[in-house]
Amino acid sequence: MLQPLIGKLNDIRVVLASSSKQREQLLKSINLKFEIIPSDFEENLNPSEHTFSDFVENTARGKTSNVYEKLKNETPKPGMIIGVDTMVTFDGKMYGKPKNNEDAIRIIKDLTQSGLPNDVYTGVAIWYNNKIHTFTEVTTVYMAKLSNEEIESYVSTGEPLVNFTFK
Amino acid sequence: MLQPLIGKLNDIRVVLASSSKQREQLLKSINLKFEIIPSDFEENLNPSEHTFSDFVENTARGKTSNVYEKLKNETPKPGMIIGVDTMVTFDGKMYGKPKNNEDAIRIIKDLTQSGLPNDVYTGVAIWYNNKIHTFTEVTTVYMAKLSNEEIESYVSTGEPLVNFTFK
Repeated sequence: MLQPLIGKLNDIRVVLASSSKQREQLLKSINLKFEIIPSDFEENLNPSEHTFSDFVENTARGKTSNVYEKLKNETPKPGMIIGVDTMVTFDGKMYGKPKNNEDAIRIIKDLTQSGLPNDVYTGVAIWYNNKIHTFTEVTTVYMAKLSNEEIESYVSTGEPLVNFTFK
Repeated sequence: MLQPLIGKLNDIRVVLASSSKQREQLLKSINLKFEIIPSDFEENLNPSEHTFSDFVENTARGKTSNVYEKLKNETPKPGMIIGVDTMVTFDGKMYGKPKNNEDAIRIIKDLTQSGLPNDVYTGVAIWYNNKIHTFTEVTTVYMAKLSNEEIESYVSTGEPLVNFTFK
């Protein structure tokens, strides 16, 4: 289904404004040619001032704009810039990347021990034809119940601080 | 699966603290004998001070406590009181019952035109053995996209003001 589009996209300079390994693999899996230029956008929006979709779309827009500013005078010009932001939400709250192991344990307990689903919000901002187009996708995740021991053992690997969702 | 429990429950006075027709039908469908005594609990919790599950569980608890106070000196004593509160949530916000037709149109547009799922939170508070037990269930609903004309036509029937979820 994507093949006719991929052909067109491979004629322009496509930039992924993200250093996420998972996003890189996703784009590679559709045979898109692209380069990776992470943004320096400071992710400092105040969650209490935004709905979930506003928050992730505005952060994604910030990343895309930041990379556009870096590249706008280059030759060849960028043809498409893709910025993305992902946020885990649960019971009406957004959960950012944990600050430390204690924070990671608290978050994972919240997300896994209540039996309630988590909604993962992903905002996408695509610069193309001198405009930024944004949209949000939501994935609902039902987590297995984890014991305190399982959570502490996982957090002690250090992975949650590096690799919490796609951030 | 419920049959052994239903037998026991039919030996005690079970009270549903709600005037919702849908809740009444649900309980009837499991062959439970119960009476209906709606609560006078004023539903005035401030959404910004609660997570979604806290909000619906605390409101359900308020309804159950209110009906318990009404019945505690009666003979036969109540054996179980069931209070319930349901709240539609979307994109990080709770949506209460619409105040008027204009409000109903705004809410239904929000819930149906973005393509994002709605999470319906139901809090239950059961008084039994002199304690109140609470829990929350979440149902994720994907709404069809409705046109403005369809929404306005539905709202003009008056139904959303009477029958918004189970409230």
